[in-house]
Amino acid sequence: MADVRTALAEVVGEEHVLAGDAVPPEYGRDESLGVTGVRPDLVVRPADAGQVAAVLQVAGEHGLPVTARGSGTGLSGAAVPRPGGLVVSFERMNQILEIDTDGQVAVVQPGVTLAELDEATAAHGLVYPIFPGEGSASIGGTVATNAGGMHAVKEGVTRHHVLGLEAVLPTGEVIRTGGRYVKTSTGYDLTQLIVGSEGTLALVTEVTLRLRARLPHRAGVLAPFPDTEAVTAAVPRLTGGGLDPLVLEYVDLLAMSAIMQNAGLDLGVPQEIQDAAGAYLLVVLENRSADRLDEDVQTLGEQLAGLGAADVYVLTGDPLRKLITAREGAFWAARNAGANAIVDAVVPRAALARFFAAVPAIADRHGALIGGCGHAGDGNVHLSVFQPDEDALAKVMDELLAAAAELGGTISGEHGIGREKIRHFLALEDPAKVALMRRIKTSFDPDGILNPGVLFG
Amino acid sequence: MADVRTALAEVVGEEHVLAGDAVPPEYGRDESLGVTGVRPDLVVRPADAGQVAAVLQVAGEHGLPVTARGSGTGLSGAAVPRPGGLVVSFERMNQILEIDTDGQVAVVQPGVTLAELDEATAAHGLVYPIFPGEGSASIGGTVATNAGGMHAVKEGVTRHHVLGLEAVLPTGEVIRTGGRYVKTSTGYDLTQLIVGSEGTLALVTEVTLRLRARLPHRAGVLAPFPDTEAVTAAVPRLTGGGLDPLVLEYVDLLAMSAIMQNAGLDLGVPQEIQDAAGAYLLVVLENRSADRLDEDVQTLGEQLAGLGAADVYVLTGDPLRKLITAREGAFWAARNAGANAIVDAVVPRAALARFFAAVPAIADRHGALIGGCGHAGDGNVHLSVFQPDEDALAKVMDELLAAAAELGGTISGEHGIGREKIRHFLALEDPAKVALMRRIKTSFDPDGILNPGVLFG
Ligand SMILES: Cc1cc2nc3c(=O)[nH]c(=O)nc-3n(C[C@H](O)[C@H](O)[C@H](O)COP(=O)(O)OP(=O)(O)OC[C@H]3O[C@@H](n4cnc5c(N)ncnc54)[C@H](O)[C@@H]3O)c2cc1C
Ligand SMILES: Cc1cc2nc3c(=O)[nH]c(=O)nc-3n(C[C@H](O)[C@H](O)[C@H](O)COP(=O)(O)OP(=O)(O)OC[C@H]3O[C@@H](n4cnc5c(N)ncnc54)[C@H](O)[C@@H]3O)c2cc1C
Repeated sequence: MADVRTALAEVVGEEHVLAGDAVPPEYGRDESLGVTGVRPDLVVRPADAGQVAAVLQVAGEHGLPVTARGSGTGLSGAAVPRPGGLVVSFERMNQILEIDTDGQVAVVQPGVTLAELDEATAAHGLVYPIFPGEGSASIGGTVATNAGGMHAVKEGVTRHHVLGLEAVLPTGEVIRTGGRYVKTSTGYDLTQLIVGSEGTLALVTEVTLRLRARLPHRAGVLAPFPDTEAVTAAVPRLTGGGLDPLVLEYVDLLAMSAIMQNAGLDLGVPQEIQDAAGAYLLVVLENRSADRLDEDVQTLGEQLAGLGAADVYVLTGDPLRKLITAREGAFWAARNAGANAIVDAVVPRAALARFFAAVPAIADRHGALIGGCGHAGDGNVHLSVFQPDEDALAKVMDELLAAAAELGGTISGEHGIGREKIRHFLALEDPAKVALMRRIKTSFDPDGILNPGVLFG
Repeated sequence: MADVRTALAEVVGEEHVLAGDAVPPEYGRDESLGVTGVRPDLVVRPADAGQVAAVLQVAGEHGLPVTARGSGTGLSGAAVPRPGGLVVSFERMNQILEIDTDGQVAVVQPGVTLAELDEATAAHGLVYPIFPGEGSASIGGTVATNAGGMHAVKEGVTRHHVLGLEAVLPTGEVIRTGGRYVKTSTGYDLTQLIVGSEGTLALVTEVTLRLRARLPHRAGVLAPFPDTEAVTAAVPRLTGGGLDPLVLEYVDLLAMSAIMQNAGLDLGVPQEIQDAAGAYLLVVLENRSADRLDEDVQTLGEQLAGLGAADVYVLTGDPLRKLITAREGAFWAARNAGANAIVDAVVPRAALARFFAAVPAIADRHGALIGGCGHAGDGNVHLSVFQPDEDALAKVMDELLAAAAELGGTISGEHGIGREKIRHFLALEDPAKVALMRRIKTSFDPDGILNPGVLFG
């Protein structure tokens, strides 16, 4: 241990190695409700890719398991290290290296946060359009989890905006993948393979991101519906209608009241409409032109009414921002209310109704309370499960995730498998695919030093 | 050989095995200018994934190299088999299995052509927005090459629209990847790894594609510019201006006259403007609303004039379709004019000017004539190189591709490496990445039966 510490200090400098009791416990946990933190033996804070490569070499020589850490906001325990392991924290690699306005590209270090990037791009009239709900998340972390968020219905997810990477392989080589272009057919797409790999294939030391013009006009429409069926029936009509919504979120009653309470919000929806509502849709539109936006909001309102909405509430400016922030904070609301687990399943959009229909029976069978909201536009359902009994909770999760898989969906849309969903991943995924993924893992990381225990267990 | 033939006939039926002299030579070639066809010993035409798996098993047992074949329109020799090899032709797996209008998804077999899919989606008011220039190309081929085309500036490329695959591994397992959703963080993205892998990792037997609403209104603007510098300077202004062009193509004088002549087109550009033109930009806009389109065309015209266009010609309906078709046929025009090679390099959009500035010197140095057109909006440059001398041609290609790589670009944007660009790939790509790709190849195909000689040589 003293040996390793000295070797690491030679790489990053004494003051950037934390060891033993000097390691703040924060470095051992993320925001997952299901994975207990593990304090690592060592933390290093490298300054550049060369240092990261040298750190991996030291780790390789000493057989030390290595876990990358961005901001620790992950929801699957993927940043929780192995006992006795080494955490590589990217907090010092936090520079926005370039905003290339001609190329509409940003080149950033992994420790830059989403909020920082948003501020920097705004100054150029550009935007990185991926907004997972937590602005303090690091770009490195969002790349490693393939983070999604509310804009995915229009913009896709992190994967669709990462044009290139600099990454350090566990074998110590620094590679660059992709570049400032959207098109390439030049060998296997290593960029896409590393995106979403939860720190198990390579450590990301630089990211080239696709930006687009920031549209100046935005409006939201909140529509109470009589029940969940009406909401799920409305979703494909709204995505297919040509209005191209930026946000298309579903919020059930339980989630709506938790969110509103947690944020101290009142949107002025009259009590009798609230009482008659069974679920809400929130649709946000964006446009270059204020007139076109007004027209589109009008059209949207008519569509929603035609689809059974009890009323429509148009929100802009501050109230809209507050509602979006409150919705993004749904996780905190759920946690504060005592939720025991969060579901991040995806089902094909057209199967949302069948998924929601299955939920109450599962809740009843195991005495759980289940409520939630979700990225309805892309079939990504976030449910909060309240059931403090561990066994019963496990059964609820088993059945919910199996239901999503059976409907042709997937068990994690954006949070990742991490340490939390390994059991479900291995139980529900085709063993031939898992075996193939393990072989791919070995092709990157023959000694298995990168984030062992994540993904495959 | 008789053994293998019998074994294959047992799988696909006698009438779907072609052998020896009965193999039409077409099965041995694609449209690459640089790779000579090789007639395979055997061709099979499987009917389903089960048959494909059984064929791969037979091939594995007999150590037969296997090359998948879609429509043979590829431009890199990737569908050219090994001498003595087996071609798996997907011509019988040509069914559109489903157009899911609620999910905005198409599920198709790999032998479906782009033109067939376009007709089928049109009937539902939907579109698969990826239009590489050849409608007879198969979906399987476009997935394997990650085909691009003119819409990439707005829509991205094949990769961004493939949501899921059914694929047969060289080890015989049939796997399903992804699904009818845009979001997933559930292990490594095998879909994205197989897309663009040129038939070297797995055979694709079903593809799930993302569709979108087909917009009814479209207009093109053709703008002659005094010179190439003015064109390249205009490109980032047009992509960043918020009009979101569907097509943003650059056509130089040589290409323009070849295209027009080949298509027998006359766009009514007055002779004195043609004489003063140094290059053309073609911009196409699309909209849900005819009024908005008119407004946008107006704005675009003003932008183009401000950027130095000598004039603007608005085209809609039939003339626009004809010009697009003529541009798509640029390859035929170049081939008919005797081009010896086609460049498919990509440079960052902001480096286009520097790339174009380098071309004339390279042409001069080796006595070549170089002209072309390209997907300017995404930095993908197609040049036709006229130089019948093999050595001089090789030098031109070396220098052009090296120039693209040096500018932070890539040697193939959409045609792939195939057999044609292996030398350049191995010379210009980081050896650490090539070694990693070889290990990935082995993790799929331990015995190297899938398309040996493609990509890695
Ligand atoms: C309130 C709240 C709301 C959220 N909403 C969303 C949402 O809407 N959508 C969504 O997708 N997520 C959401 N999340 C989850 C979380 O924000 C994302 O998973 C985010 O991507 C994590 O980023 P991070 O920097 O905190 O990563 P960490 O938690 O630090 O790490 C996550 C993973 O990335 C790896 N990693 C980190 N940096 C690197 C690197 N440089 N190289 C290689 N691997 C690296 C880690 O090893 C780990 O496997 C939410 C979280 C919270 C707390
Ligand atoms: C006039 C013309 C214009 C063109 N314009 C463009 C353009 O703008 N953009 C562009 O990207 N391309 C363009 N191309 C190239 C070509 O159309 C594309 O490369 C197309 O993707 C090839 O499809 P195909 O079915 O003909 O594939 P093939 O040539 O048959 O095969 C191409 C590759 O795909 C593999 N393959 C085929 N089917 C499968 C399968 N089911 N599973 C696994 N591997 C498979 C083959 O083994 C081979 O490696 C053009 C070609 C022509 C002739």
